[in-house]
Amino acid sequence: MNMSFKNFPMVSKVVFGRGSFTQLGEIISPMRLNERAPFIFLVDDVFEKNTTLLAKIPLLYDDQIIFISTEEEPKTSQVDSLVENIVLGSSILPSGIIGIGGGSLLDLAKAVALMLTNNGSSHEYQGWDFIENKGIYHVGIPTISGTGAEVSRTAILTGPTLKLGINSDFSPFDQVILDPELTEGVSKEQWFYTGMNCYIHCIESLTGEYLNSFSKPYGDTALSLCKEVFLDDTLSKEESQDKLMMASWHGGMSIAYSQVGVTHALSYGLSFLLGTKHGIGNCIVFDHLEAFYPEGVKLFKQMKAKHNISLPQGICANLSDKEFDIMIDISLSLEPLWKNALGKDLKTKTTRSRLKELYSKL
Amino acid sequence: MNMSFKNFPMVSKVVFGRGSFTQLGEIISPMRLNERAPFIFLVDDVFEKNTTLLAKIPLLYDDQIIFISTEEEPKTSQVDSLVENIVLGSSILPSGIIGIGGGSLLDLAKAVALMLTNNGSSHEYQGWDFIENKGIYHVGIPTISGTGAEVSRTAILTGPTLKLGINSDFSPFDQVILDPELTEGVSKEQWFYTGMNCYIHCIESLTGEYLNSFSKPYGDTALSLCKEVFLDDTLSKEESQDKLMMASWHGGMSIAYSQVGVTHALSYGLSFLLGTKHGIGNCIVFDHLEAFYPEGVKLFKQMKAKHNISLPQGICANLSDKEFDIMIDISLSLEPLWKNALGKDLKTKTTRSRLKELYSKL
Repeated sequence: MNMSFKNFPMVSKVVFGRGSFTQLGEIISPMRLNERAPFIFLVDDVFEKNTTLLAKIPLLYDDQIIFISTEEEPKTSQVDSLVENIVLGSSILPSGIIGIGGGSLLDLAKAVALMLTNNGSSHEYQGWDFIENKGIYHVGIPTISGTGAEVSRTAILTGPTLKLGINSDFSPFDQVILDPELTEGVSKEQWFYTGMNCYIHCIESLTGEYLNSFSKPYGDTALSLCKEVFLDDTLSKEESQDKLMMASWHGGMSIAYSQVGVTHALSYGLSFLLGTKHGIGNCIVFDHLEAFYPEGVKLFKQMKAKHNISLPQGICANLSDKEFDIMIDISLSLEPLWKNALGKDLKTKTTRSRLKELYSKL
Repeated sequence: MNMSFKNFPMVSKVVFGRGSFTQLGEIISPMRLNERAPFIFLVDDVFEKNTTLLAKIPLLYDDQIIFISTEEEPKTSQVDSLVENIVLGSSILPSGIIGIGGGSLLDLAKAVALMLTNNGSSHEYQGWDFIENKGIYHVGIPTISGTGAEVSRTAILTGPTLKLGINSDFSPFDQVILDPELTEGVSKEQWFYTGMNCYIHCIESLTGEYLNSFSKPYGDTALSLCKEVFLDDTLSKEESQDKLMMASWHGGMSIAYSQVGVTHALSYGLSFLLGTKHGIGNCIVFDHLEAFYPEGVKLFKQMKAKHNISLPQGICANLSDKEFDIMIDISLSLEPLWKNALGKDLKTKTTRSRLKELYSKL
């Protein structure tokens, strides 16, 4: 492929509405291949004791719920072992994979659906367009807003040598259910970190070199929704939930057709070395990026203060030079992100010493 | 199906960019079934002598260009005869239908793709979800912005008794190419009428009863882009073309998940009886709807003045009572549109005499 413009695959079908999660059974039932081909529900284990939510999962025949801890970012080894267990547990391929959770869970669901029909280990597919076969039917149901994982064509995984997405036209969900009520129990901190992930996506996309007329209105919309959610006191809780879910959707579309920037380039290194989760990692990094995103960071600090969020400090204080080098290597490998943020200044502004200086501040 | 929330099918893949039309060959080539299964290009006949555009259409083997006059709105009989000719002209089904033109042409392309795999006449499928079989691969390439036909799940046709869409989950395009350069030759009037179609979609969607948190950000985005395009003198021609194409895309998404209103309810009657084309028809009607959309109409008149547009007057002046009745019947049959605009006041505000009074003003 040698295209000048991206040919972006969109989510096939989308439902939006408070309470729309109850339509799940009706939606997936025509997709059941037969009674022996189960639906596998990958569910964030924060819901393990949430009987209200669990009662709404439409289990039939050999359908199975697998609870997933998202304490750590999703790993290629985790994907591989899930796939192995699913294959061993049933004589035929499942009818579908239903991911219910945040961005990590959704990315895991995408990766599992793909790896059920592609040979080898998932780490062999980290990168761009290595997936050869269409995955099995997969549904994404976000329970926290901001990651944009519900619209993206990537499934970001930490592998043996890289934190990098499986980027493929087969990655996007066949079905997404956007039910803002599912975000009800999210803690104040998590709500902020993940919401700011969307905000940071917008800032990086809208100020980047790769911005274009397609990406811009999505980014503008998501940014304006984020500002409402985090700065407008007159919004009801329900309005905030609705709006942040839509911000995530539009923010995801914006970066899908442009690119993220410095925050992500640095936070991937943090995640890889320290296991820092993506949402909070981006916040920790972005808080120190006045030099790159002056206005965006200023407003971020305002929102942080307004919501009484205190971010961890000094997380890189006791790292060795070798450890800094690992993070710097990961970060520099993400050249498109740096290029988006810095354009022609790429080489002069991304020296190893500059990166070390940036990491040292965190 | 008894769902409370719509499960909306989105366009499978989308490319955006000035000049992206030249990627058409590369995009459709993997979709060619075999050398005997042609691609059929349905092309608005305004391009019949446009050698620059025609040279970019990637014809191979038995591929065929069919020029379509869009002097009149698309008809079910026209769809049926196109389908018949395509079937007679080839021993096997085509590899795909590629529609290149405005909303009428795009709707025609959708309908032809569907009717190649569904029996009978297209008028039997006017309405909601009557289509049983997936259509053949179809690509939409708008050459004028505003209709939203490139994202909708409808193909609006005039049949023997109705102007009504074929609404189906199989209608949306498998591929859309958004190349704002293709809108280059559009006349000032057509640019205005079709752009205002988008503007009117936004006003109707954003003020309607069916508005929801999904539809709203799309409508807000499209409305703000329309205002920029038609009121901001500082935009370059290229920026205007880019922005109006994105306004159409977002406006289409907004009404897809909500509904249009009084303008469309009335203009469908006009189109059916007088053959008034959709874009100008909506403008003629909207110009007289201060009572329903006070702010929207005020701004419309401002834009109309700014662009020196004079709309036809008195087009219903010489109609008989019987003719008024035909239009009123069509209009009243569109109950969801009236309900969206008027809510509980539906019955009291949509008397036949009120509708006759509205039509008489046009």
